[in-house]
Amino acid sequence: MTGTPSAPGKPTPAAGVGQALHAFASQLYPICRSITGDGVRQTLDLIGRRIELKRCEVPSGTKVFDWEVPLEWNIEDACVVGPEGDRAVDFRAHNLHIVSYSEPIHRTLAFEEIRPHLYSLPGRPDWIPYRTSYYRRDWGFCMRDRELQSLRPGRYEVRVDSSLAPGSLSYAECVLPGQSKQEVLFFTHVCHPSLANDNTSGMAIATFLASWIGARPHRYSYRFVFAPGTIGSLCWLSRNEQRLKFVRHGLVLGLLGDPGVLTYKRSRRGDCEIDQLLSYLVSQADPPGTVIDFEPYGYDERQLCSPGFDLPVGRLTRSVNDGYPQYHSSADDLELISAGQLERSLEVCQRMVETLESNRRYVNLSPKGEPRLGKRGLYGAIGGRSPADRERAMLWILNQSDGSASLLDIAQRSSLSYAAIQQAAEELAGAGLLAAAKPDSKRRKASAGRAKRARAKKAVSGEKR
Amino acid sequence: MTGTPSAPGKPTPAAGVGQALHAFASQLYPICRSITGDGVRQTLDLIGRRIELKRCEVPSGTKVFDWEVPLEWNIEDACVVGPEGDRAVDFRAHNLHIVSYSEPIHRTLAFEEIRPHLYSLPGRPDWIPYRTSYYRRDWGFCMRDRELQSLRPGRYEVRVDSSLAPGSLSYAECVLPGQSKQEVLFFTHVCHPSLANDNTSGMAIATFLASWIGARPHRYSYRFVFAPGTIGSLCWLSRNEQRLKFVRHGLVLGLLGDPGVLTYKRSRRGDCEIDQLLSYLVSQADPPGTVIDFEPYGYDERQLCSPGFDLPVGRLTRSVNDGYPQYHSSADDLELISAGQLERSLEVCQRMVETLESNRRYVNLSPKGEPRLGKRGLYGAIGGRSPADRERAMLWILNQSDGSASLLDIAQRSSLSYAAIQQAAEELAGAGLLAAAKPDSKRRKASAGRAKRARAKKAVSGEKR
Amino acid sequence: MTGTPSAPGKPTPAAGVGQALHAFASQLYPICRSITGDGVRQTLDLIGRRIELKRCEVPSGTKVFDWEVPLEWNIEDACVVGPEGDRAVDFRAHNLHIVSYSEPIHRTLAFEEIRPHLYSLPGRPDWIPYRTSYYRRDWGFCMRDRELQSLRPGRYEVRVDSSLAPGSLSYAECVLPGQSKQEVLFFTHVCHPSLANDNTSGMAIATFLASWIGARPHRYSYRFVFAPGTIGSLCWLSRNEQRLKFVRHGLVLGLLGDPGVLTYKRSRRGDCEIDQLLSYLVSQADPPGTVIDFEPYGYDERQLCSPGFDLPVGRLTRSVNDGYPQYHSSADDLELISAGQLERSLEVCQRMVETLESNRRYVNLSPKGEPRLGKRGLYGAIGGRSPADRERAMLWILNQSDGSASLLDIAQRSSLSYAAIQQAAEELAGAGLLAAAKPDSKRRKASAGRAKRARAKKAVSGEKR
Repeated sequence: MTGTPSAPGKPTPAAGVGQALHAFASQLYPICRSITGDGVRQTLDLIGRRIELKRCEVPSGTKVFDWEVPLEWNIEDACVVGPEGDRAVDFRAHNLHIVSYSEPIHRTLAFEEIRPHLYSLPGRPDWIPYRTSYYRRDWGFCMRDRELQSLRPGRYEVRVDSSLAPGSLSYAECVLPGQSKQEVLFFTHVCHPSLANDNTSGMAIATFLASWIGARPHRYSYRFVFAPGTIGSLCWLSRNEQRLKFVRHGLVLGLLGDPGVLTYKRSRRGDCEIDQLLSYLVSQADPPGTVIDFEPYGYDERQLCSPGFDLPVGRLTRSVNDGYPQYHSSADDLELISAGQLERSLEVCQRMVETLESNRRYVNLSPKGEPRLGKRGLYGAIGGRSPADRERAMLWILNQSDGSASLLDIAQRSSLSYAAIQQAAEELAGAGLLAAAKPDSKRRKASAGRAKRARAKKAVSGEKR
Repeated sequence: MTGTPSAPGKPTPAAGVGQALHAFASQLYPICRSITGDGVRQTLDLIGRRIELKRCEVPSGTKVFDWEVPLEWNIEDACVVGPEGDRAVDFRAHNLHIVSYSEPIHRTLAFEEIRPHLYSLPGRPDWIPYRTSYYRRDWGFCMRDRELQSLRPGRYEVRVDSSLAPGSLSYAECVLPGQSKQEVLFFTHVCHPSLANDNTSGMAIATFLASWIGARPHRYSYRFVFAPGTIGSLCWLSRNEQRLKFVRHGLVLGLLGDPGVLTYKRSRRGDCEIDQLLSYLVSQADPPGTVIDFEPYGYDERQLCSPGFDLPVGRLTRSVNDGYPQYHSSADDLELISAGQLERSLEVCQRMVETLESNRRYVNLSPKGEPRLGKRGLYGAIGGRSPADRERAMLWILNQSDGSASLLDIAQRSSLSYAAIQQAAEELAGAGLLAAAKPDSKRRKASAGRAKRARAKKAVSGEKR
Repeated sequence: MTGTPSAPGKPTPAAGVGQALHAFASQLYPICRSITGDGVRQTLDLIGRRIELKRCEVPSGTKVFDWEVPLEWNIEDACVVGPEGDRAVDFRAHNLHIVSYSEPIHRTLAFEEIRPHLYSLPGRPDWIPYRTSYYRRDWGFCMRDRELQSLRPGRYEVRVDSSLAPGSLSYAECVLPGQSKQEVLFFTHVCHPSLANDNTSGMAIATFLASWIGARPHRYSYRFVFAPGTIGSLCWLSRNEQRLKFVRHGLVLGLLGDPGVLTYKRSRRGDCEIDQLLSYLVSQADPPGTVIDFEPYGYDERQLCSPGFDLPVGRLTRSVNDGYPQYHSSADDLELISAGQLERSLEVCQRMVETLESNRRYVNLSPKGEPRLGKRGLYGAIGGRSPADRERAMLWILNQSDGSASLLDIAQRSSLSYAAIQQAAEELAGAGLLAAAKPDSKRRKASAGRAKRARAKKAVSGEKR
């Protein structure tokens, strides 16, 4: 598992929200999801009881870019019955026992014939691996290596009561219109069967976050997409190509309940506002998280950040995909995720939303010299030594607000907290000293300038030693 | 105090100039200055005996940007007389005893009534703090905490013989016209009463520097402004808005006599020639100084670098404002500043002027291959191993002089001294191999290129380990 | 000597090529070369037996930029005969005994008169120094300091049987036309007499590399220039000014046989593809080499990278000029250079050529989402944990190929080997998923983007600590 668990002595956050998140994840956990089928629909039903969902069904055979929606897969039962008539592998005992998208079969075969269809984790003899065969017709079973090793030669009855038939792929959106058409996009996958961190944690947090945003006024529009990985996000992209221009910021959510520290993975562009903001929030988290560069594997950022879309979308997880031993095995269960970690993950998402809502660029309306803060009641009257943080925040905002720097830029340059900067900006705007900057006019130029200053600053610390 | 004092074993510089600087600071020290009033005028009188000053009076009530010139404040006497008839606080004993801009009062009050008007430094019981109340009508006394603690209940006679009346704010300029209208601006504040480092040191050094420049030919025009802080610099800015376009480089001077190392504070832009030059000079000083990033508090760089002006102006101090314990107290006295530190501060300012005068961009007139230095007597004739520093300097200048790199750029890229580069450039220009570059043509592009190379260089050192 | 010798336990590379390189260097070693004369011609004869050379003679007196081709110098014999009639210094014993370009003389002189014409290395009493006097008429002898110290007062017969007469400067080119007019330029100097590392090593490697390239198909045209240093490269530049626009990449070769690690010296521009590529190859070498910034001394990069040409030409050496004790002395002999080091130097040049040939920018023809690799047989079918390196390489190429990133860019960003990236790109192109990008359209923009990401990446590692 990446990172370290939260410090033991730390007080657990209020049980309420964390417990509720864990309880919802527990509801989602037993469902046998795949990239199509009724498991996805049941999942969306549960989510839809909490937030308003618009659901979509994309028929099998539909072309989506280079892909095609596959036949719909559903499964009733599956087992391998051994020479003595016992169920050596039993789907009813655990969803992971069946390779997802296994075709139907009912035959009796010699052990050597079934052996190539049996998957286990020799290094983790008590864990069942998670395997799929979406695009190659095959069948297979996953099992504990300890049990696999105990199988003896003989005839085995193999039965997969599944269907692979024309149907549809299901996904759903929760759309929360704001004052602006500009959107913030959240994406989480809904195709993994009984894996708790990957990704009932993401579904639970996305659901609660949408509910929380829906209950308060907001400037941006928010869109939450719950879709199967890869083919599901491609379906969504193909049906929404015209509206991608409204996506100003986005975040893929997953792996948010394990004990690891938060990990932000940058967008392909690497220098979007979402990259700046999440890097900031993750560094401020307790314990501080890490930031990693974009790479073209992982979750749906693979599709959203493909060169034909290149959306300003990052990813928030705790441990990363393939970054903890329990990943894609039966050990990614409800014990791996905790109420506390889920709650703290949700909190960071809430801070992100609050910051996106308030972060903007201002223009100082009294830019020649400092305006007189004292006569507006914004400043102490007896001149002493150093200005207090509130006054520092005001001076920084007034000095930097030429329309190029956002409040977050100013917080980072001044090393004052975003909260202090944001509060001071409200006071200054209230006093008529700030106006919102015209959109985008000076941004490119400014961002270059900031980069230059950042480098210069780095050089200084060298000089100081 | 920031930084370390100069090494004890080091030879003290020639007593002459340093002693003269200290003597002049001592003359300025006893005057009771404020942002208006006769104290400023007496100060300008003393400076005007040494350099030619153009003096300005700005009437009370004049609007300057968001501000207004206040009533003029003058003071004759002030005291608090205790129950036994003794002067418990006496302005005549120390200028700092009165809160600057205290309004006139003559009353007898109970101790509890005067207590809120008494200021001390509990952590420094023998120091008198410095306090002002420019823009809120009030009165107050500053005193040693040890004395404050000894006051007993009873009736106290409070007397402030001051006047707050229509008058004017005084400032002065020393202008030294050069071959070019392009200006170098020096700024120092003249509003602090008996504080030696803050800022009789700055006034003394600005005065001596102006005198030194005036005695030699110079390319740039030089302008020294002696003005009260904030409202004084705003007055100057409002009366000189049309000529700000001529300000090519500028420096705020202050806190130049204490034992700290030199500190250069960058301009708001952070990448001006003045930033490059002072960072270089300060790093070359003995002991080396430090460079800090711009922040919107401090001295008049607050106004000069406000977003409406954004002048290429940095700041040179030793310790920084609020960066040494004696700051804004009676302990900032003539013992805190030394002849040696003052002299070394002046020397850096002189190096700055010399370098600005000689620093320029050249074009190599024989850019295809190396020109033959030998036939011009510029190069050793027997080919041996490595070129000497003089020859290296020539090769660097010839190679880099495509009109984009200044001599200082070349000194920094080559790691040769500026003096060596400048001397070699003169020889090359004398031999007809260099011509002055057209102004500004290739500068932006070049500065980007240099930044890129600097980063590349940094990367290399990583590779080398 | 810079760097460390290759690890002792390491297996020596196949004797064949290294031994052949050393043997060829040994053939070149005894010839008395200078910047003109028959020594250069004999050298070019030897090279011309192995690769096809186009030879040029530039007459004495020809103006080349700021220079002029000097009189041709040839030498038959030279000696200093001592009072007892013995040859105290004898050209026949070692080429280095004569200062190159010594004018003819035959006189008997007192020791005090010849002493100023005798050069030695007091710190290295057994080594003969290498000295030249190309552009000042003079004569002189170089000798072991031990022998110089043993000379006694008396009359000495000095004889230099040389000629300084109108003739010509000789150089040669080997041109290997490719599919494109775009050229890769290799430059090596041929003017040093019996010095093995400087530069029979460079001549041998350039010759073998040209031969190796000539035997295989190639996209670029390749040009190898064998010319005397400085005046020779200036002659080539003056005769080829019109074709310099075709030079896309270039490398000066020298000092390639000593025990030092490889050293790449950047072009003046510092950010050319050759800089990126050689930095990469040198860092991948075993043992890893170093990269140094451009400086305007060294070999013919001084001329090729003068501001009037500013060609994208770097330099590859092992130790650098003046960077090893034997430099420019008789100790730079055939024992200093080894077959193994020569062979490994050649190998890096071969990798450079191979990489330049294959390195290009592609456009992903299926840029919206990931293309389905599985249906094209490019991807494993059973979904498991992490993609293998081959699949990672494909995903990186597809994600980055918007026409801006070269394969080498992608290798560096992904930390996968260039070989893996190049192989995967071939597979993807073979599957119709990639097309060659239009030349240069998005390059500037992209290189800026990469720089930004590199900085961002650096920032991250800081965050992670």
